[in-house]
Order: sequence, then structure tokens, then C-alpha cells
Amino acid sequence: MNVYFGIDIGGTRVKTAVVTAAGEILARTELPTLTEAGFADLVERINGALDDSLTAARLTRADVRGVGAGIAGFLDVDTGTVIEAVNIGWSNLPFVDLLERVMKLPVTIENDANVAALGEAWIGAGQGARSVLCATVGTGIGGGIVIEDRLYRGVSGMAGEIGHMVLHREGPLCNCGHHGCLEVLASATAIVREAKVRRSTGELPADADILGAADVFQLAAEGHAAAQEVIQTAGEWLGYGLAVAATCLNPDVIVVGGGVSKAGESLMTPIRSAFARYALPLVGKPEDVRLAQLGNDAGVIGAARVAALKWPH
Amino acid sequence: MNVYFGIDIGGTRVKTAVVTAAGEILARTELPTLTEAGFADLVERINGALDDSLTAARLTRADVRGVGAGIAGFLDVDTGTVIEAVNIGWSNLPFVDLLERVMKLPVTIENDANVAALGEAWIGAGQGARSVLCATVGTGIGGGIVIEDRLYRGVSGMAGEIGHMVLHREGPLCNCGHHGCLEVLASATAIVREAKVRRSTGELPADADILGAADVFQLAAEGHAAAQEVIQTAGEWLGYGLAVAATCLNPDVIVVGGGVSKAGESLMTPIRSAFARYALPLVGKPEDVRLAQLGNDAGVIGAARVAALKWPH
Repeated sequence: MNVYFGIDIGGTRVKTAVVTAAGEILARTELPTLTEAGFADLVERINGALDDSLTAARLTRADVRGVGAGIAGFLDVDTGTVIEAVNIGWSNLPFVDLLERVMKLPVTIENDANVAALGEAWIGAGQGARSVLCATVGTGIGGGIVIEDRLYRGVSGMAGEIGHMVLHREGPLCNCGHHGCLEVLASATAIVREAKVRRSTGELPADADILGAADVFQLAAEGHAAAQEVIQTAGEWLGYGLAVAATCLNPDVIVVGGGVSKAGESLMTPIRSAFARYALPLVGKPEDVRLAQLGNDAGVIGAARVAALKWPH
Repeated sequence: MNVYFGIDIGGTRVKTAVVTAAGEILARTELPTLTEAGFADLVERINGALDDSLTAARLTRADVRGVGAGIAGFLDVDTGTVIEAVNIGWSNLPFVDLLERVMKLPVTIENDANVAALGEAWIGAGQGARSVLCATVGTGIGGGIVIEDRLYRGVSGMAGEIGHMVLHREGPLCNCGHHGCLEVLASATAIVREAKVRRSTGELPADADILGAADVFQLAAEGHAAAQEVIQTAGEWLGYGLAVAATCLNPDVIVVGGGVSKAGESLMTPIRSAFARYALPLVGKPEDVRLAQLGNDAGVIGAARVAALKWPH
């Protein structure tokens, strides 16, 4: 049987899965990243996870056509190097080389937003579409473009990074040094920041815990108007940004994923409404903007897809 | 010898050229569109132009692998139909069918901005680049995307239509119904509109003829500060818009063509400066923004390229 091993590497957790050539997950594991234990230790544990999953699925290493890893960071995919992964604490790490040496299998890497886009285009919300723009809205806002089942990376792998479109030139300062990027207007970080402002002005209860965007969604669900407004505003910026991106790309389908997308329709309603307001009908219709379907599996499925595209069975 | 016949159809003039598979123009013609004489008449004259050019180049119809036509308008390229070409006065015209019947050669069509992008990517300012975004700045602002020598059209042929990115939501009303599209901020029409405002306020001479953008460039060259400011502002909007588009697309090269690009460096300086201000260095560098090189030949060369991609020799 032809299977692929997908790895989704985050700052705190690593998820892995054995995935068939049709995108079905046969077995999965989850382990702590434990950056402080060193990279060699992580590689050993990932290699052990593959053994465990293969045993669980009654397969052997001979069934594995390739390994794909999704990593949040800036990568050189050609040399297999992680140039900078701030959240994980890696820089200039020859990831592919080190993994291949231990795993004795071909390994490939891709950034996490591109991986999610590939996964959603393959068997998620973009299945069957010729071109998919997938925005991953979490702590930051990433994005990926899939055209005819292939990733379109652009000249330096930045294609689809719509989080850094400047949409509001007098807006807040973004980590990237620009003002008013989509990311600083509509990410989970932006939602939390705005909710805290509303708490400081007394529009939200002074004792409200606002640690993540989920807390703001909870406050909105409980009927707090200020929390609803914060989400509405973030959704409008997202819809406007997706309209601008769609005007460039004219994709079949636009997928909204990442942690913030768990808010579901309370976020999708303002997104679709702003999208319709700023995108010509020929460029895209609000119903072309869809919620991601793969949830937490987007990473491992997309990572397996990266490997499947590179080493077709 | 393998050659292609490129046709560039505008509202007043039709240009044609016999082009080699390497992009060299062997012979060319120019004729009035004369829409009022009817489409059958135009087809006859285009067919005659092909004969004349072949005779001039000592070739025969057997040498012609295909015919490509660039048309300003909304097209269905699959059926070869001009759905709406406002400037030429055509709607629901089965262009390819009618041309093939008379010319007895395979014919294909593409919209003018896409054609220009293909031409510039082939043997113009984008030659050798893996991905090219080409903006055509004239009466309106069109655009096209070429990825690995192929046009990326998007789901409804609108990919690259950056003229309708909404960049200034409180800006002037565009023909498309939105406010503050790039087109309404930075096209020749916008430059003329703003220059007329400056004339009405006395900042430009009351007797200044402002019929087209070229007149505004002339006034700027003569040292009129208000005309220089109008061009500066249009250039800044273009640079900002190209930065936003590049953040989506991460192209190797961005080409600025169309009538307005004839202003040359006086326009490119504010374009590049705004581009650098709003695009991350990884997304693109100001020197990646280049002036188009094919000038008035972009249409016929790009149209020949459309045919050459469809019917490789």
C-alpha cells in the first residue's frame, strides 16, 4: 500500500499521521515539541511515531513513499532548510537532511499556510476547484495559493501571504514594520488586542478573561455587544482583504481556516458581506468564500500531500 | 517557416503582424477598425492584411501555424466569443468562428491586458522571469499574470485585473460601481480628471489643453508643480497597488505598460518609492518593477504568443 507520513510541527506540539494517497488518515500521533531537548531528540521521537503508526495500521516502512513536514516559518524548500522559525526557535536548520539521515525516507518541507492550502484544496473545502486561495487566520494571518492541485509559491515562497497586504495605511503597526497589514487588523492577536481595549473602556466586564480569540468569541456568544463588534470588525477587514486578493487572483474558491475560523458563521457573515461589497461579481461571489473543513488535520493531511505531489506512487 | 499572425484590435485601429516562433516581427499592417462598416468587412480586411504581410515576408499561408487576436473586452476564450467589448461596440460576437470561416486558419482570442502580459513575459521586460504581473495603465487599468510562460486566467478570466482592487474606500466612484479602485485613482482618466481640477482651481493655466494624460506629462515637463503632483499621486497609488498585488502573487517581475507608462521615469520613480514602502523586501524589490519594453508592439506580439502557446510548431 502507498502511504505518506505527514508531520505538522508547531511551537508546542507536533502532530503526525500516516495518510493514504487518497487523503485518508490511517493512524496518528501527537507529541510535545520540547525544543529545549534538542532537534536530534525530536527527530528520534518523530521516527518512533512513524513506527508506532505503521504498526497500528499494519504497514511497514516499505509502504511509505515519502515524508512531508509543515513548519511555521520561512523555509528554503529547495535545500530543505528552515531559515527562521521564530515560534519553534529554529534558524538555519538543515531539517530535511537531518530527518532523512535518521528516517531513511525521502523528506520534504513546506510552510504551514501553504500546507493547509494544499490540504484544503485536496480533500477539504477547496476539493475539485481549479484554483484555491486559503487564508489561515490565527496568531498571524498566512495564506497559500493552489492552482490545478499544485502550490503556487511565487519567486520567494511568499505568494498568498495576504496577511501582509497593507489595507489601512494609518492602521496599527504590524510586526513586519508596516502599518495596517491585514494581520494586524484581523488576526487572533488583533481580536484580543481590540477586546482588551474594550475591556479597559468598560465596554466589556473588567473581570473578563481575554487570553485568546476564543474568549472573545465566548463573550460575543454570551451577548456582549462590544465583543460582537470586535469580531464584526475583524470579519469585515478579512472580507475586504479577501476581496482585494481575489481581484488579483480570481480563484474558484477562497477558504478561511486557522484557529479564528472556529468562530464559524459569526465570523463568516461579516467576511462574506464585506467580500460582496468590495469584489466584483465576476471576480468572486460571497458563497465562494468557505470555511475550512479539515480543522486540526489540515497540517498533517497537507504535509502528506506535499510529499505525495513530490513522490507520486 | 513557422509563423503566427497576431492581431491587436482596438476601438479605432487594428494592428496586425506576422511573428516568428521566436517573437520577431517579419511584417506588419495597421488599418482602421471602422466598426460601422460591419464585422464581415473587418474580417475581409484583416484577411487581406495577412496576405499582404505574407507576400512582403515571402511566405505563404502554409507557414502560418495559427492566428491570435487581442481584444479589449470581456471574452469567453473557450468558445471564442466576445461577450462584451464596449470600446469596439461588440457583444456576443462569435469572433473565432467567423474569423476561422474566412481565414481558414485556427484562431484564438485573449483580452488585451492578458495579451500584453504574455508579450512582455515572452520577449519584453519580463523575459526569463518565472512569474510576471503586468499592469496595463491607459484609459483604464488592466492586468495579466504569466506563470512559467502560461497565462494564469483565474476562474473567470479576471486574474490580474488589479485595476479593480479597492484601495481607497472613500475614493472617487469607479465605472464598476465601487469607490476607490486603483483604476479610478491612477489611470490616464484619473490623471486627466485631477489635472482638470487643478486647472479649475488656478493651479494649472486656465488655457492649458488637457485632453489626455500626455498633456499632463507635458505640463509637468514644463515645470508646472500641480501637474507634477498629479503624476506623483497617480504613481504613488500605482506603487501602493502593485505592492498589494505583489503581496498576493510574489512575482519575479512586475511590468508597467500601457499609454501612461510612456511617461517613463517621472512615473516610475513614485511607483518604485511607494512599492518599497508597502511591500516587504521578500515580496518584491522596487527594482523588480520595470517599464514595459514592447511599446505599441505588445499587442501583436502577445497575440501571436497566444496562438504559439496553443499551436506549438
